[in-house]
Amino acid sequence: MTTTAARPAPSPAPAPTDAEPRVDVAALEEQLLGRYAQLRREARAITADPDFQKIEGMPVAEHRERVLAQLRRLEADHDVLRAFPARLGGADDHGGSLARFEELVVGDPSLQIKAGVQWGLFASAILHLGTAWHHDTFLADAMHLRVPGAFAMTETGHGSDVASIGTTAEYDAQTQEFVIHTPFRGAWKDYLGNAALHGTAAVVFAQLVTAAPGGPRVDHGVHAFYVPIRDPRTGEFLPGVGGEDDGVKGGLNGIDNGRLHFDHVRVPRTHLLDRYGSVAPDGTYSSPIASPGRRFFTMLGTLVQGRVSLDGAAVNASKVALAIAVTYANQRRQFTGGDAEEVVLLDRGQHQRRLLPLLAETYAATFAHEELLAAFDDVFSGRGDTPEQREDLETLAAALKSSSTWHALRTVQTCREACGGQGFLAENRLTGLHADMDVYATFEGDNTVLLQLVGKRLLGDYAASLSALQRDRGDLARFVAERVADAALHRTPLVRAVQTLGDLGDARRSVGQLRDEATQRELLTDRVEAKVAQVAQALAPARKLSPDKAAALFNAHQHELVEAARAHAERVQWEAFTRGLAQVQDPGTRQVLTWVRDLFGLSLIERDLAWYLINGRLSAGRARTVTSYIDRLLVRLRPHAQDLVDAFGYRQEHLRAPISSGAERERQDEARAHQRALRASGAAPVPEKHAKG
Amino acid sequence: MTTTAARPAPSPAPAPTDAEPRVDVAALEEQLLGRYAQLRREARAITADPDFQKIEGMPVAEHRERVLAQLRRLEADHDVLRAFPARLGGADDHGGSLARFEELVVGDPSLQIKAGVQWGLFASAILHLGTAWHHDTFLADAMHLRVPGAFAMTETGHGSDVASIGTTAEYDAQTQEFVIHTPFRGAWKDYLGNAALHGTAAVVFAQLVTAAPGGPRVDHGVHAFYVPIRDPRTGEFLPGVGGEDDGVKGGLNGIDNGRLHFDHVRVPRTHLLDRYGSVAPDGTYSSPIASPGRRFFTMLGTLVQGRVSLDGAAVNASKVALAIAVTYANQRRQFTGGDAEEVVLLDRGQHQRRLLPLLAETYAATFAHEELLAAFDDVFSGRGDTPEQREDLETLAAALKSSSTWHALRTVQTCREACGGQGFLAENRLTGLHADMDVYATFEGDNTVLLQLVGKRLLGDYAASLSALQRDRGDLARFVAERVADAALHRTPLVRAVQTLGDLGDARRSVGQLRDEATQRELLTDRVEAKVAQVAQALAPARKLSPDKAAALFNAHQHELVEAARAHAERVQWEAFTRGLAQVQDPGTRQVLTWVRDLFGLSLIERDLAWYLINGRLSAGRARTVTSYIDRLLVRLRPHAQDLVDAFGYRQEHLRAPISSGAERERQDEARAHQRALRASGAAPVPEKHAKG
Repeated sequence: MTTTAARPAPSPAPAPTDAEPRVDVAALEEQLLGRYAQLRREARAITADPDFQKIEGMPVAEHRERVLAQLRRLEADHDVLRAFPARLGGADDHGGSLARFEELVVGDPSLQIKAGVQWGLFASAILHLGTAWHHDTFLADAMHLRVPGAFAMTETGHGSDVASIGTTAEYDAQTQEFVIHTPFRGAWKDYLGNAALHGTAAVVFAQLVTAAPGGPRVDHGVHAFYVPIRDPRTGEFLPGVGGEDDGVKGGLNGIDNGRLHFDHVRVPRTHLLDRYGSVAPDGTYSSPIASPGRRFFTMLGTLVQGRVSLDGAAVNASKVALAIAVTYANQRRQFTGGDAEEVVLLDRGQHQRRLLPLLAETYAATFAHEELLAAFDDVFSGRGDTPEQREDLETLAAALKSSSTWHALRTVQTCREACGGQGFLAENRLTGLHADMDVYATFEGDNTVLLQLVGKRLLGDYAASLSALQRDRGDLARFVAERVADAALHRTPLVRAVQTLGDLGDARRSVGQLRDEATQRELLTDRVEAKVAQVAQALAPARKLSPDKAAALFNAHQHELVEAARAHAERVQWEAFTRGLAQVQDPGTRQVLTWVRDLFGLSLIERDLAWYLINGRLSAGRARTVTSYIDRLLVRLRPHAQDLVDAFGYRQEHLRAPISSGAERERQDEARAHQRALRASGAAPVPEKHAKG
Repeated sequence: MTTTAARPAPSPAPAPTDAEPRVDVAALEEQLLGRYAQLRREARAITADPDFQKIEGMPVAEHRERVLAQLRRLEADHDVLRAFPARLGGADDHGGSLARFEELVVGDPSLQIKAGVQWGLFASAILHLGTAWHHDTFLADAMHLRVPGAFAMTETGHGSDVASIGTTAEYDAQTQEFVIHTPFRGAWKDYLGNAALHGTAAVVFAQLVTAAPGGPRVDHGVHAFYVPIRDPRTGEFLPGVGGEDDGVKGGLNGIDNGRLHFDHVRVPRTHLLDRYGSVAPDGTYSSPIASPGRRFFTMLGTLVQGRVSLDGAAVNASKVALAIAVTYANQRRQFTGGDAEEVVLLDRGQHQRRLLPLLAETYAATFAHEELLAAFDDVFSGRGDTPEQREDLETLAAALKSSSTWHALRTVQTCREACGGQGFLAENRLTGLHADMDVYATFEGDNTVLLQLVGKRLLGDYAASLSALQRDRGDLARFVAERVADAALHRTPLVRAVQTLGDLGDARRSVGQLRDEATQRELLTDRVEAKVAQVAQALAPARKLSPDKAAALFNAHQHELVEAARAHAERVQWEAFTRGLAQVQDPGTRQVLTWVRDLFGLSLIERDLAWYLINGRLSAGRARTVTSYIDRLLVRLRPHAQDLVDAFGYRQEHLRAPISSGAERERQDEARAHQRALRASGAAPVPEKHAKG
């Protein structure tokens, strides 16, 4: 069904004229592949192999077995253990490993996520939360899939709020064992990949309870334990362990998600993964991190790679969807234009409006992800592993994972609709991609919860900068004065009127300003700062309130906090795009990518245009030029759209959508040739309206 | 798995206090059921029967057979032929028939659409496009499913542009037959329900070509033909007919969509469905409608019921999704609030922000659909069947179908995400609803294309009102003066400054104004009028341009035209809501519904706030109060959210989502009881941070 030509079929769309800049597609592709270009290429060779590709409509049971078999082949034939220590056969290459894994989404998102469960969560928890004995004892089996494992963190009753899980692990000094127990239905572990069928062990997160000799029983909070769950020969649950299959899901049905419960299941003391907290034989607890809160976040922080790889995978899914939809829109004709020829979809103004801003955002997300991957590798390689860098990494991962996974859903859905009925056929990939990507928005941290974490971090930074200022009275005065001026700006019509008068002159100059990198930066940066400051001011009274009232105040401003975090994520993407742009050598490519970056920046501003107007950042006159400049950018970018999706570097064997294979162009050419031949032969019937004339 | 209690489990959420208004749920339910309450109730009894309910994850082949069997049972046991003439066993009840069909979506959207294909398209085309002989010859078999039929309009190469289809039906006076032919691949009929498997006949749309004796061969445009396609005994295609299965789709897999092609297939002259155009034995063409364009639109107009029923079905799907998500959000607890108790999701500000505006829009869409159904019934019953009323009906259907189907996708997706991991399990319905509703946005007229139709109609009305004014010089002067004043308002900061000064006083008074029905109406109406006028002015030069340049000008303003149409659709919904509100008797219900209506109106204004600011309709000060009033409304409505979804009238057997069955509340209660008991017994371990203190 699919033409497996090396490249997406070239489009008959308007080619850039000589006066136009041209994109150096090969060079841009290389730049987008980033620092792990070679590893990505190898991974793309894997997903070009039909054995690693999703078959739409495959029954769940069969799909699960297929993906397990794919995992075994990955382990046997491909370089999938790079993240693990060299002494165990890995390469200590954290960033490169993720770059490869996030490419698997192109073969089958179930494959990416099942690989993520096995190596990124189960084995990684042993690696990062365990110590040498655990590595020696459990890691090789986990790495080589001799022990498929579940990552038993989430519970039916607790998802994003991991700190409150109900499963307990109480130490019994008598037998030197931990007793793993799920005391009520809500404490059952849930949604775990490998739990329904394939897993023979699990890393189980539970509240660690122990007593030092003569001391009280103390709850030391969430820790991880290595727990065998099934007899590998029979596949039966071990005594005390039980579970359920989560059944059919909205997508990712190649993964056997399920539930686990534990009825006083005993594991040896040594099964506590004890890098951040250990229990001596006599029950004495000790930890290198004194604060239980900081210990908890440090432990969770070691698992940040899940979010990093979801960010990358979501960006890749967006690329595939856009490559399909843009290629189709360059070939599919519908409705006549001025000259009675039918027009390709992408020549329609509204079609450009729907697809090109998503394309621009996908570029931004690509550059931002590359920086996230670098930050991740810095921390995990130890090159730059300070608490501040870890915290920055976690904030960045939370901001970008939530942005890019929502972006992928919006992009895939818009592409699906832009392809009409064809887009609804499973063979054209888009519906399957949406179904599979759906849960990316809520797993590994619900996006809304993640944005709140980002928002709280921004509030913290703001408070820190305020108290730094308070150490310097002079600066504080200036700071307050600025805030007051700012507040005045919001409310005083006179100030705005003056501004507005300044805009009356030349609309083109105004566009010129918006095109300016510094102006975009100022508008996007100022928005984050002002939104954070507004929330901070609104929450300031909380300190003097009762916990109840403080919580209510916070709740009343939750939406604004989320919006501030969203603005921050967008600014981060814009900055990354701008840095990426600075590295482009070819002048034509740089010109086109500058338009793409401007389209991204201006689209962000347009989306939040009311904020800019209400807060006196843009006058009505300038705000109007935002939209008209976007309209101009769409026209400029339209001839380059195919190049821009081709530069993503996915070939037909990755896209695998008959509608982007060139089949549509052939159909259109055949239809037009038929009509032309008919007219030329004189055999065409006369249209009724002419017959009457 | 599902508790089939008569009602969604009551929620433990904050009940309205005595001072608060209360919703009379039963009365509101009755009002929402509308004029076809009894028919809807009967249809809901059908979808409460497990035999008519979708089984998620069922293999495609099995699902197709199941839905066909459901159709046969519908025909045998239930009142599904109301739309057909009484003399053939129907009830000539067009509106009532649709009200019933659109309820089937709650059982299985595939069932709704397969029923729509058979009765709403295939049999309806025979009814509305055919004449007495066709009714006598074909209709009974179609009605009683002895002939499952395809509606062969769409082609691979032509979807929304039906006028340009490539299939031809050339009359052969020699044999008095039409020759049906698909001359190229793009002319194959595509995406047709019943085409892959079950259909034994089709209504085929083709360009009718015939010659009067001695005259030239004339193309009379698109007409419909009754064409047998399969041998009902063997299921094999008849000679000259061929086809393909469309295979797995993103949803609606209970329907056997497929392609059909025709190689000079001959049907008798009488098989032309000839209500709007007939061919005499000698080849002479005649039609009661002289203009080929108007004839075409009249023929298509008879099939408007498809769009009407999709509007209703989309509203119903939104109701189901919201009933599930709001019920869950009232039971599910996560993260502690001020008092260390975990808080139900719907008490979170952001959760209210995500769900309640969708709930308000669903109410608006419900009232608007009820009016659409009435308009449809007026036209089709003949009570109000003028060309103007038909045109109004078609415009209304296009506007509402596009609004409500997109709304359903947004609502279902937001509900799915708001339910976290549970929302991703197929058993909780939301992912399946999204998958099935997806294509509603592009079939029966792509939403974007429909909005353009609406936009063109608005432009036409605007032009008509202008030329009416031109007949009266005095009025014209006034009109122009108003336009000029309007233009000045856009550009002159002084006018805005005055406005803004007026707002400086009392923010509460400003909110008071926004709460005012007349203010909302003015803001929403003015927006449509101004947007239409702006597009009209921008397009005015087109008359003097070459067709190419005129097309380019139109294309450059396509996005604005779509936005004007969207604003119109929203205003229509708001007006319908307001009329519905006026009929509420119970004071408490009226108060709460007024807040819901205000939330809808203000949400519309907030979404387009930048437009109001740029165009001088709202000052920054008033714009700010839009959001703060929305925040207030969310707090007011929160205690009534459960009542508002309960009033949709769907019971557990319709929702069928374990998470809205009360199971979640039981789990939460069990967990809290466990923790309380533990604390009370003194057996709870000491949290580490206290142990250290």
